[in-house]
Amino acid sequence: MSSPSRVVNVGADMFADAIADQATEVQRVDWRPPMVGTEADLATVAGDPLRRDANAEALKAMFAVQALLVDVAPASEVLDLKPGEFLHAGPPIAWADASGPMRGALMGAASLEGLVEDPEDAAALFESGAGVSLDPCHHHQTVGPMAGVVSPSMWMFVLEDPASGRRTYCSLNEGLGKVLRYGAYGPEVLERLRWMTAVLGPLLQTAVRQSGPVDATGILTQMLQMGDEAHNRNRAGTLMLLRDLSPAMVTSELASSDIADSLRFVGGNDHFFLNVAMPACKLALDAARGIDGSTMVVAMARNGTEFGIQTAGTGDTWFTGPAQVADGLFLGDYGPEDANPDIGDSAITETAGIGGFAMATAPAIVRLVGGSVSDALATTRRMHEITLGENPRWSVPVLDFRGVPSGIDVTRVCRTGILPQINTGMAGRVAGVGQVGAGLVTPPAEIFPEALAALASATRSRLTVELGLSDR
Amino acid sequence: MSSPSRVVNVGADMFADAIADQATEVQRVDWRPPMVGTEADLATVAGDPLRRDANAEALKAMFAVQALLVDVAPASEVLDLKPGEFLHAGPPIAWADASGPMRGALMGAASLEGLVEDPEDAAALFESGAGVSLDPCHHHQTVGPMAGVVSPSMWMFVLEDPASGRRTYCSLNEGLGKVLRYGAYGPEVLERLRWMTAVLGPLLQTAVRQSGPVDATGILTQMLQMGDEAHNRNRAGTLMLLRDLSPAMVTSELASSDIADSLRFVGGNDHFFLNVAMPACKLALDAARGIDGSTMVVAMARNGTEFGIQTAGTGDTWFTGPAQVADGLFLGDYGPEDANPDIGDSAITETAGIGGFAMATAPAIVRLVGGSVSDALATTRRMHEITLGENPRWSVPVLDFRGVPSGIDVTRVCRTGILPQINTGMAGRVAGVGQVGAGLVTPPAEIFPEALAALASATRSRLTVELGLSDR
Repeated sequence: MSSPSRVVNVGADMFADAIADQATEVQRVDWRPPMVGTEADLATVAGDPLRRDANAEALKAMFAVQALLVDVAPASEVLDLKPGEFLHAGPPIAWADASGPMRGALMGAASLEGLVEDPEDAAALFESGAGVSLDPCHHHQTVGPMAGVVSPSMWMFVLEDPASGRRTYCSLNEGLGKVLRYGAYGPEVLERLRWMTAVLGPLLQTAVRQSGPVDATGILTQMLQMGDEAHNRNRAGTLMLLRDLSPAMVTSELASSDIADSLRFVGGNDHFFLNVAMPACKLALDAARGIDGSTMVVAMARNGTEFGIQTAGTGDTWFTGPAQVADGLFLGDYGPEDANPDIGDSAITETAGIGGFAMATAPAIVRLVGGSVSDALATTRRMHEITLGENPRWSVPVLDFRGVPSGIDVTRVCRTGILPQINTGMAGRVAGVGQVGAGLVTPPAEIFPEALAALASATRSRLTVELGLSDR
Repeated sequence: MSSPSRVVNVGADMFADAIADQATEVQRVDWRPPMVGTEADLATVAGDPLRRDANAEALKAMFAVQALLVDVAPASEVLDLKPGEFLHAGPPIAWADASGPMRGALMGAASLEGLVEDPEDAAALFESGAGVSLDPCHHHQTVGPMAGVVSPSMWMFVLEDPASGRRTYCSLNEGLGKVLRYGAYGPEVLERLRWMTAVLGPLLQTAVRQSGPVDATGILTQMLQMGDEAHNRNRAGTLMLLRDLSPAMVTSELASSDIADSLRFVGGNDHFFLNVAMPACKLALDAARGIDGSTMVVAMARNGTEFGIQTAGTGDTWFTGPAQVADGLFLGDYGPEDANPDIGDSAITETAGIGGFAMATAPAIVRLVGGSVSDALATTRRMHEITLGENPRWSVPVLDFRGVPSGIDVTRVCRTGILPQINTGMAGRVAGVGQVGAGLVTPPAEIFPEALAALASATRSRLTVELGLSDR
C-alpha cells in the first residue's frame, strides 16, 4: 500500500507544473480571477432580479426550435436582394476596412452578377460605392461561412421553425480550396458558382420540394454520434442530407448526367452540410433574441477584420474587437504569415453549443485543426463552465451522453476569463488566394466586458425606472 | 495537501470492491490466472521457436490485404451453388442440430428457391435430406450474418484483394426485424428477397461495374472515425457506400423509380454495409491461414448451436463449444427467454479487430447493445491484452488514434482468461420470429484450451520430427 502526496492546483499552471515535475500527482482545477475591471458590472448584473429567469427563458427558446430545411431558392427571391446588393459575414464593415478575402469574395460576386467583366475591376466599383451596398448577413436572417458573401443570383438553403414560421438562410457550400468564401475569384471559382446556380440549386429545390422538409436538427443529433461537430467536420451530415434527398433527385426528371454530377459534387464535399447546420443554429439562437435581462450570447460573427457578438439582452448592438489569427495547421507551404484574421458567421455553431464546443464528439478533428485528443475532450468540458445549460437533443456519447454546452453566458466568461473556443478554416490574407489552413481561435477577450457593461447599464436603467415607479 | 491511501488491485475484483466501498482510490489491473489445465500446453507453445515469427507473419499478411468491392452477382454464378445447395453461418451443422432461426432461414430459402411452395413444408424436406445439402459459408470463401443462409438465387457482394486476386463473398443485407437471417420466413420476407434478386442486385451490379471497385478497407478506416464499429453500427459505412455508388446508379438507365426505391432501401438500412465489412474482414484473415506455428485466430463463427474458431496454425479444424445467449437489450416485450444462442459469421469483424473490439470508437452503440460508455472504452483496451498487434489503417481517434486490437492470440486468451468481446444481434429462438434484441456475448471459454491443445500437439509433432532429423 502506498500513500503518495496529492496536490490540488487551482489557477496558475506554474505551480502545478513544478509539482508534476517532481513526479507528484496533480489535479488541475481551472480557475482564474475575473476579467480585469469587470467586478462592478458583474455585481450589478448578478443583482438583476430578471437575470435567472431571462436566461432560463433564452435557453428554453433556443432548445425548442426545430430547424427544417424547407426550400432551396435564389437570394433574389427569398431575401429580395437587388442587383448591387451584397451580404457579408460578421458585423457591419465598409469596403475600406475589409480584409483581403472579404474583398476577393466581393469582387468575385460582383463579376458573377455581371456588374463587372473582370473581378479586378470590381475594386474600383466598391471603392466608389456607386450602385453597390454591403450589409451583414445577420441583418437578413442569413449566415455565411468565411467571407459569407451573398449576391442576388446565389441559391440559398431555407430553414424554417414550424412552430413560429420563422426562417433563416444560407448559400450553398462550394467545397474547399480555391472558392469564393475563402476569397478566391478566379475563372474556376466563377464557373463553379454558375454551375451551382444553373444546375445544383434547381435540382436541390426540386428534391426538397418533392421529398418534403428535411429535419436539420435531427441530422445534427445524429452527426454528433458520428464524429462530426458540425463546424469543421460535416461528413456524416453531408451523407445524411444526400441520403434524404437523393431519391427525389433521381425522380426529378432532370438530366441524369446533371443528377450524377450533383451527387458527385455533394458527395465529394464533406463540408456541404455546414451551410445547413449554420442557419439551423441561427434559427435556434434567434428565438432567444430580445429577452431583457438575459446575458446569453445569441451571435458570434467575424468579418475578417472584427469579431462581434450580440446578446439576448442588448438588442441588435454588436460588441466588437479585432479578429484574431487562428493557431492551427497549414495547407502545403502556407504558414501563419499567410493567414487572414478570423472570418465568417460559422461561429454561430459554437454559439449554439457545437463546433469547437463539441470537439469531444469529433476527436478526429485534431488532425485538421491541430491539438490533441485530450485537448478536444478538455475543450468541451471547459465550455460547460461558461454556458447556461446542456442541449437535451444534442449529446456527446463519449462524455456519457452529456448534452453539448449551450448558451454562452457573458457573466460566466467575464467571471472565469475562459473564452469561447472556436475551430475554423483559415483564409489567405491576400484576395484571391483561398484557403491556407484550419485551426483554433477565440474571440478577442475585450468584447465580453464591453457586452457586460451594456448589460449592466441596461440593468441599472431598468432598476432605476422600477425604483422610480415604486416611489410614485 | 492531502495524502490519501491508494490501492493497486490485481485480479479478483472482490478486494477492490471492498476497498472502493471504503471510499479509497483503487487502480484495477486486469490479471487472472491462466485457464485451468492450460499450463503445460502454454509452456509447449511458448517454447515453439516458430511462434513469434509465425504470428508476425500472420499479422502482416492480414494487414496487407486491401479489400475492394469489385462485383455483385448471384450465388449460382460466383459460388457455383446448385439448386438444393444451401450455405449457413458458423461451423458445420446438421438439420437435426439446427436452432430455430437457422431452421427458419433454411425453410424460407427453400421456398425462395421454389423447392417447396410453403416454407413450412421445407422442414420435412431438410429432415429427409433428399436433394438438399448444408455447408458452412466459411468453406466457400463466404460469410453470412446471423443464420447466414445463402441459396443460389441470392445476389452476393464480391470482394477482392488486388494483390493476390483472392475473393470473398457475402449476401446483400435485408434490413432489420422480420428478415430471413434472423429466422423469419413470412410472405413479406420472401417478397423482399425476390425484390432484392430482381431489382437491387442487378442495379448494384451495374453501379459497381460502371463506377469501378469500391475500397471497402478505406471505408472501414473512415467509419471508425465516424462512430461505427462495423458490426452493429454500420451507419456511416452504409452512407459512404451509397455516396460511392449512387452516381453510377443514376446513370444506369434502369427505371428511375427502381433506382429511387433502391436508394431508399439502402439509405433506410443502417446495417447495409455490414455485409461488405464482413467479407472484407474475411479476406484479410484468410491471408493468415495455414501458417505453421501461428496461434492467431482466423475465424470465429456461430451456427446458433455451436461457436467455433479456427486458427492460423491448425488448418481447417474447427474448435467448437456451445454458443452462449447474449446479455443485452430487447425489442418490445421480448426477454432473455425468447433469445436464441449466439448465431452468425459476423464475429469475423471481432476476429479482425473491429466490432466489439472497437467499441471505444462507437460509444453510442451502448444504447443498442447495453453497457456503459466507460465499458465500451474499457472493452477495447482489454482486447489489446489478448491480441498480437494494432492495425495501422484502422485507428480509434478517442484512444489517441491507437490502432484497433488485432489478431486474437489463443495463448494470450488462455494465459489471461480474457475472452474476446463480441457485440451481436439476437434472433428469436423460435423459427419465424426474427430479431428480438442485441447485446454482448463471448465465445464459450473451453474452445481456446481446445485450440491451444491442438497447437501444442502440432508443436510437439514438429519438434519431434526436427529432433529426429537432427539426430540423423
